[in-house]
Amino acid sequence: MRLVDQTRLPHETVVAVCATAADVASAIRTLRVRGAPAIGVTAAYGLALAAYRAAEAGADALAAVEAASGLLRAARPTAVNLRWAVDRLLAVARGAPRGAALAERLLAEAEAIAAADVAANQAIGRLGAAMIGHGECILTYCHTGGLATAGYGTAFGILRAAHEAGRGIRVVACETRPVLQGARLTAWELLQHGIPGVLITDNVAGSLMARGEVDRVIVGADRIARNGDVANKIGTYALAVLARAHGIPFVVAAPTSTVDLATPDGAAIPIEERDAHEVTHLAGVRVAPEGIAVRNPAFDVTPHRLITAIVTEAGVAAPPYDRSLAALAGAAVGS
Amino acid sequence: MRLVDQTRLPHETVVAVCATAADVASAIRTLRVRGAPAIGVTAAYGLALAAYRAAEAGADALAAVEAASGLLRAARPTAVNLRWAVDRLLAVARGAPRGAALAERLLAEAEAIAAADVAANQAIGRLGAAMIGHGECILTYCHTGGLATAGYGTAFGILRAAHEAGRGIRVVACETRPVLQGARLTAWELLQHGIPGVLITDNVAGSLMARGEVDRVIVGADRIARNGDVANKIGTYALAVLARAHGIPFVVAAPTSTVDLATPDGAAIPIEERDAHEVTHLAGVRVAPEGIAVRNPAFDVTPHRLITAIVTEAGVAAPPYDRSLAALAGAAVGS
Repeated sequence: MRLVDQTRLPHETVVAVCATAADVASAIRTLRVRGAPAIGVTAAYGLALAAYRAAEAGADALAAVEAASGLLRAARPTAVNLRWAVDRLLAVARGAPRGAALAERLLAEAEAIAAADVAANQAIGRLGAAMIGHGECILTYCHTGGLATAGYGTAFGILRAAHEAGRGIRVVACETRPVLQGARLTAWELLQHGIPGVLITDNVAGSLMARGEVDRVIVGADRIARNGDVANKIGTYALAVLARAHGIPFVVAAPTSTVDLATPDGAAIPIEERDAHEVTHLAGVRVAPEGIAVRNPAFDVTPHRLITAIVTEAGVAAPPYDRSLAALAGAAVGS
Repeated sequence: MRLVDQTRLPHETVVAVCATAADVASAIRTLRVRGAPAIGVTAAYGLALAAYRAAEAGADALAAVEAASGLLRAARPTAVNLRWAVDRLLAVARGAPRGAALAERLLAEAEAIAAADVAANQAIGRLGAAMIGHGECILTYCHTGGLATAGYGTAFGILRAAHEAGRGIRVVACETRPVLQGARLTAWELLQHGIPGVLITDNVAGSLMARGEVDRVIVGADRIARNGDVANKIGTYALAVLARAHGIPFVVAAPTSTVDLATPDGAAIPIEERDAHEVTHLAGVRVAPEGIAVRNPAFDVTPHRLITAIVTEAGVAAPPYDRSLAALAGAAVGS
């Protein structure tokens, strides 16, 4: 299984080869593949890979898939798409005949998830772009483009669709410390698609809002709770508070696979704490002094009251989200 | 003239030697010396240096000082301490006899400014520490310690005084992109003084406030307008909005030399825009793709309505600042 290594972009396009499901889990843990929808799809392929490997070796494919599912589910805790995809493949595996046929069924299911994610992103793009006025300046955060999904992008998909529709948008991309997905990946995708954009450090966003230079904020999501609380990249919450203080619409874009009706609210979402090294070192060079303590939560929770709308492939949810999200997620499952 | 090169800290302690006032201006422009009070004191010594050099060469010392003052004043536009110190030395120079005596007068004046700045910082520390309750967790931004001043520090001086008074404080230091003064310098001074502290990326601050983990924010200032609007490191404004949204006191610490009664409000403060390279490169390595546009304002303005108190050496100013600041600045000038 081949993945574009996102930690090496934009300067090198390196393909990481995963020979086992453990390799896939490691690629997810180390951010070689990242983005909530992308890690869901990748985990699905990882389970198919586990089944093929077992079948080749004459081992029990279902047992191998069950073991791999534990490994993959534990790779990162916050994004629900990972668990969602693993659960979906496990259900298929448990209902399938043993052996090579099981592996084929899982590969077909992974491919269906990938295809559905691309279609969902394109629908999100269409629905979201319909909100956007001519000449808007839109601030986005982290990276939600083609590589963060199976293709096209969520929040970035809206930017792309609005640009393709000739809306004359401009984009402000926040660099997104500590891993700099905005500086490395969003800036790169903006250039690739010819969307006018500017890169800022995260701490410039408030100042641009105060100057009236931001018309809308659009971000992705790693998990959306039943009540509309959104876990997303650390710093999203601060942007939502700032947007509210300046009367700027704050929009979340995500497929319904990111909505977790089993999580009642944001307080129930586990927040991954990552290694201090991400903060103390830059480009491999230590910047902070030895011995300083670090807090490095990878995500935060934005409460639903700060969110103007949530754009999914099944429609745009508006407050009160406990009702609108359940209806959209139900419609998507039923479709 | 010898300066500790702040761009090389905390890993190397390199002394930059300035042979001329032009060297001093360059050290200020390139951030080898930074921090509003520190650049004021440094510019004062730079003018004394220009006078000595001219006297040695048998040239007109006053003419040399006038020329150097233009160079130094233009080195950085936002911090008013630079202009304040240059104007103070120019007034002394114009009233002094020509030749070597002029240089001696300027050196004495620069030393007086440095000594007064240390005393001011210690007074700020005492006055500010009196506000702080036992066990408070205080978030600070950028670097306002000994190296950013003639000694002791402004906002950092309050942290230091509270720690020395046994208040049991803990500090959250924001790394402060793009130049990372928090990660490099504040973290280092926290360790040097044994003050318990933790380093975060700037975008974590809002999340810690939402969790109830921040009791107070204390920052420095580069210029304080007559109405209490404060120019400080980019990102300060966002912290002030976040503090207000969470009901957290937001305190500014600065000597009266940072108060500029001639600037009516924040809109009149020039904001320096620095090189894109600071954002696109980390530790000398390019992270953002070639061709992406960048906005890199070095400062922002926090409106007075978001500021709980301004601690100066002459006393603590409370709203309405147009009255309280004028009284304190007048008292300081008269003292």
